Amino acid sequence: MGQANTEFENRIIIVGVGLIGGSIAAAIQSRHSGCSVIGVGRNAERLESARAAGLLNEWSTEITDELLSGRCLVIVCLPVNLIAESVHEIAKHSDDGVLITDAGSVKSAICDQVATCDRAARLFIGSHPIAGGEQGGFEFADAELFHDKVCVVTECGTSDDATKTDRVTRFWQMIGCRVIEMTPTEHDRVLALTSHLPHVMAAVTTATVGQENLLLTGSGFRDATRIAAGDASLWRAILTGNRGEVVTAIKSAEAMLREYRLALEQNDDDCIQSLLADAANCRSGLVE
Amino acid sequence: MGQANTEFENRIIIVGVGLIGGSIAAAIQSRHSGCSVIGVGRNAERLESARAAGLLNEWSTEITDELLSGRCLVIVCLPVNLIAESVHEIAKHSDDGVLITDAGSVKSAICDQVATCDRAARLFIGSHPIAGGEQGGFEFADAELFHDKVCVVTECGTSDDATKTDRVTRFWQMIGCRVIEMTPTEHDRVLALTSHLPHVMAAVTTATVGQENLLLTGSGFRDATRIAAGDASLWRAILTGNRGEVVTAIKSAEAMLREYRLALEQNDDDCIQSLLADAANCRSGLVE
Repeated sequence: MGQANTEFENRIIIVGVGLIGGSIAAAIQSRHSGCSVIGVGRNAERLESARAAGLLNEWSTEITDELLSGRCLVIVCLPVNLIAESVHEIAKHSDDGVLITDAGSVKSAICDQVATCDRAARLFIGSHPIAGGEQGGFEFADAELFHDKVCVVTECGTSDDATKTDRVTRFWQMIGCRVIEMTPTEHDRVLALTSHLPHVMAAVTTATVGQENLLLTGSGFRDATRIAAGDASLWRAILTGNRGEVVTAIKSAEAMLREYRLALEQNDDDCIQSLLADAANCRSGLVE
Repeated sequence: MGQANTEFENRIIIVGVGLIGGSIAAAIQSRHSGCSVIGVGRNAERLESARAAGLLNEWSTEITDELLSGRCLVIVCLPVNLIAESVHEIAKHSDDGVLITDAGSVKSAICDQVATCDRAARLFIGSHPIAGGEQGGFEFADAELFHDKVCVVTECGTSDDATKTDRVTRFWQMIGCRVIEMTPTEHDRVLALTSHLPHVMAAVTTATVGQENLLLTGSGFRDATRIAAGDASLWRAILTGNRGEVVTAIKSAEAMLREYRLALEQNDDDCIQSLLADAANCRSGLVE
């Protein structure tokens, strides 16, 4: 058992070799060089470049029975709206020793859709490593992207979840993550607040300021809106993939923004002070 | 004339030796060591520490006729709600060779209040170097804080403004700033968008997320909310000192936030895409 904890996967298949998939590959190559990393994607040229860059040992543009024969871990690193479909496709070709996980920022919608196929549900455990960047592509891959980052692992409710959860947990821990188990629903409620809402707020701030005023922005604006440069299609899929919780989070933010406005309009400066102090106290609880 | 452009002030008096005042002092010491920098504040011990740290040549806890005899430039680096009062006090003790400016983030309220005293109005030109940080105190002073940063210089409408503006402009340029001239009103309209609104949005995001969810935040949230850790009293004075324009900016943000929510509620995913793409396009116009 002690040995099992330090044993790493022998074969890992990464579906979608972008920033996240590429960084997972880089982390494996730098920490567990005995493991074979196989990239799967649509673009042979890009995959070959990722291999040449040392991220992949092999690559394929197709999901086949041969690729998925024997024990292996498959990590689907596609945009959230493509994950469940990909898991179904992978499950169709998989041996029983195959375990499938993902790296998507929403979980309920994915788990629900995966669960519409029994075989897929049996082979799948959801994951969400909370790490990323504004710039896409494996060229920005970083072997240390996951170092000390939280990864949420979510069970989907099938019988042998515990064993699968252990295996997925061990994988993320061995590339540097701190793993937390949550239900998909709880994950989506919290991430709507901690990740999806901040993206919306940064986008709203950026667009409200507008191109014509950028000259008079400082480092505060730059930090506060950096995430708004993220890929619009990826974020459309995230926000619409967690629609209900994002709407709830936006409503809370709307209510508080209104409080600021009313306090200013009504000259209630003590209220402004107390709102600002609450936020400053909360934010200073976060170590940089 | 060519010579005049490279001539620096001989004596500079900094009223309020915190992050901004301290960084101005540091910039002068590192670039124009012939200039004598005098700090003015309430706390003798802190001022003596700033002197010992090499930021100040002398210091005083009082504004006196002696301090303000002869040609010098006074820069008031106090919280925005204390600036006009301090300018009035300084003007009372000043020779005609004294020029007074400030570093406050709001301009109309300050210029209007300064203008209630004719002598103060004659000696004053408003400034706002767009640079700063979340952490206060001269201990965080940085001689390069103003390097390549924009400084807005605002005329207050008295007869000899051009000469004074030139002198203040030259000062900021010689510690590294790019200077832009604007009216106080125009400054406040734009800064409500580029600086004051982002602070409110970051504070709203932070408080909406709440302490209990900080564990599941990533680098995006960290960047987006960094400014919310800023001193609540300083920001209360800024927001309430630019009340009307901040309310207008908040209203614009509220309207756009509502657009996001309605698009999500009405399954108008193309609208979400287009809102996100607008923001991403705008943000990518900003060089990091």
